[in-house]
Amino acid sequence: MSIRVAGIPGSLREGSLNKGLLRAAVELAPAGMEIKTYTGLGDIPPYNEDVFAKGDPEPVAVMKAAISEADAILISTPEYNYGVPGVLKNAIDWASRPAGKSVLNRKPAAIMGCSPGLGGTIRVQHALRQTFVFTETYVMVQPEIKIPSAAPLFDSSGRLTDDNTRQHLKKFLEAFVVWVQRFKS
Amino acid sequence: MSIRVAGIPGSLREGSLNKGLLRAAVELAPAGMEIKTYTGLGDIPPYNEDVFAKGDPEPVAVMKAAISEADAILISTPEYNYGVPGVLKNAIDWASRPAGKSVLNRKPAAIMGCSPGLGGTIRVQHALRQTFVFTETYVMVQPEIKIPSAAPLFDSSGRLTDDNTRQHLKKFLEAFVVWVQRFKS
Amino acid sequence: MSIRVAGIPGSLREGSLNKGLLRAAVELAPAGMEIKTYTGLGDIPPYNEDVFAKGDPEPVAVMKAAISEADAILISTPEYNYGVPGVLKNAIDWASRPAGKSVLNRKPAAIMGCSPGLGGTIRVQHALRQTFVFTETYVMVQPEIKIPSAAPLFDSSGRLTDDNTRQHLKKFLEAFVVWVQRFKS
Amino acid sequence: MSIRVAGIPGSLREGSLNKGLLRAAVELAPAGMEIKTYTGLGDIPPYNEDVFAKGDPEPVAVMKAAISEADAILISTPEYNYGVPGVLKNAIDWASRPAGKSVLNRKPAAIMGCSPGLGGTIRVQHALRQTFVFTETYVMVQPEIKIPSAAPLFDSSGRLTDDNTRQHLKKFLEAFVVWVQRFKS
Repeated sequence: MSIRVAGIPGSLREGSLNKGLLRAAVELAPAGMEIKTYTGLGDIPPYNEDVFAKGDPEPVAVMKAAISEADAILISTPEYNYGVPGVLKNAIDWASRPAGKSVLNRKPAAIMGCSPGLGGTIRVQHALRQTFVFTETYVMVQPEIKIPSAAPLFDSSGRLTDDNTRQHLKKFLEAFVVWVQRFKS
Repeated sequence: MSIRVAGIPGSLREGSLNKGLLRAAVELAPAGMEIKTYTGLGDIPPYNEDVFAKGDPEPVAVMKAAISEADAILISTPEYNYGVPGVLKNAIDWASRPAGKSVLNRKPAAIMGCSPGLGGTIRVQHALRQTFVFTETYVMVQPEIKIPSAAPLFDSSGRLTDDNTRQHLKKFLEAFVVWVQRFKS
Repeated sequence: MSIRVAGIPGSLREGSLNKGLLRAAVELAPAGMEIKTYTGLGDIPPYNEDVFAKGDPEPVAVMKAAISEADAILISTPEYNYGVPGVLKNAIDWASRPAGKSVLNRKPAAIMGCSPGLGGTIRVQHALRQTFVFTETYVMVQPEIKIPSAAPLFDSSGRLTDDNTRQHLKKFLEAFVVWVQRFKS
Repeated sequence: MSIRVAGIPGSLREGSLNKGLLRAAVELAPAGMEIKTYTGLGDIPPYNEDVFAKGDPEPVAVMKAAISEADAILISTPEYNYGVPGVLKNAIDWASRPAGKSVLNRKPAAIMGCSPGLGGTIRVQHALRQTFVFTETYVMVQPEIKIPSAAPLFDSSGRLTDDNTRQHLKKFLEAFVVWVQRFKS
């Protein structure tokens, strides 16, 4: 069996640590799991229900297809202002519609994040979990990846080089395989 | 003494109830308070630190000026997916930079919201309060305005017509005057 | 197959609506599910790690046994001061120890609640979900039961008599059967 | 002018780091501020509205008096299971009654905490801030004290010896003086 995962970064910044964390996940994905990174976040227009009523703009349709084709989603996101980056939340707001029949409904998910400072993305992860109650998205409970003081764990090209973190990420992804399978059937 | 308030809606939808609530606030503002609604939310680009590093895009500069010139801000917002509308959070992410010296720092604020359903915007208000801890924005503690089942309180033109709600909003704004004055000096 | 559920009320009050909601759940439990209400909440001493180090006090041991013997837990709780009732959280603090090997670990759970006012226990439910991330307790995502203005739904003896609510509770419990079974194996 | 502060620890453990943090605050309180530690947390019975209806039990009356006589409160608390220690929340549940006329209403407050692990009490502090919206308790917004990996900052007798942390705590308390004065009048 093969599990297709849509990897979604929460930041648009070129040198984003969380993009680096997601690249490491792509690299470390266990046999039977393929993570494909969604790269269109910067193209999603501001959510407007009046626009939605006329049909999804092209970039939104592309994002929904990426999620729909996947068996699960993996979000790697920074925390902005003790909350979800507006850019990421705006994409989720689009993806969540129509409510109850969206591409997020009953989709397994995992959330991870790292921060340059001490917070380790603790708050954004809880905020996303709260949002995913509404969309009935099944977020893996444990283990968690929330890494503080993360900059030194990456090399100058943005590659995650810290061994402990790579091991932890590998176990996280192995647990994610088990989690996703719980919800297959 | 006169208090200038920047009114910020959290939704782009034309017929938004929360825009209606904000219009009612403009109308009911007590003597000595003037609420000027910021209308550029739909023009704010997705927050990208690389873009920020090169300077604020024009619509961001306009928003920051609107907040900077005001003594306080008043947010009227719906709740999307048990959280802050991405559109609004994205604007706050821009407004919050540079961290520690932003237009949000040490600015008094109030948050209100209404919902068509039962939630009454409870969750989005707590999420915004959490964000405003980071930005050191002083959110009024009580009273709160979080109105469930709000559609029937407005007429077909989107005017808040319910008398109890108008009275409650009036008291909310009077308390806001007192709150803002606490932080003047 | 039979599912044994430990029903845990969040309030000590004799006439608690949430105790009434739990009684209704006992009554409406689908075939194959038996809900046994834990009634010792008032006997749990204040959590103190020094006491824990010497061994669980008798009432704590009783509670842990009740949870341990069950396949799942069902919490019915009011919201106190926009958060978890201290009484309930204190019991969870005991139940959560030793961390990683507690009776809460990998246990399926569901949370429900009703309130006399408008909040419908929205906040306490999110706070409990957050706590249950730490304990790796698997809380059912949807449907939710969070009922505002609940007093008129019960008769003077504290029996849930409102038909819509009873139907909703029945579906909630049927979904809970499916949820619990996902985590058996 | 003199500011009397009721210091409230969130843990009952003898060797609690957060008790140590509170002792350091007592020691470092700026001229004009006196912090008196409340030590009766372990005596507060489980909150029960039926008991409250008959009158506050003696230990509750003592706690309410300690808060009532103070100009402000200072909480130093660990985080239990990603939330507020039940023991502390139970005390707050008592202190919050009667709602709207309690000893917590319109009382300035500050929250601090340290943890042996990485979390730094981030979550419990947000949960308390949420609770204090209900009670209209005015929690200082910035600076924050939320210290991860805190054990090495204390000596074997539980005294906070780390110089940076002591400096930070001193500034925190000086800011608290300013915050409390805003709400005097």
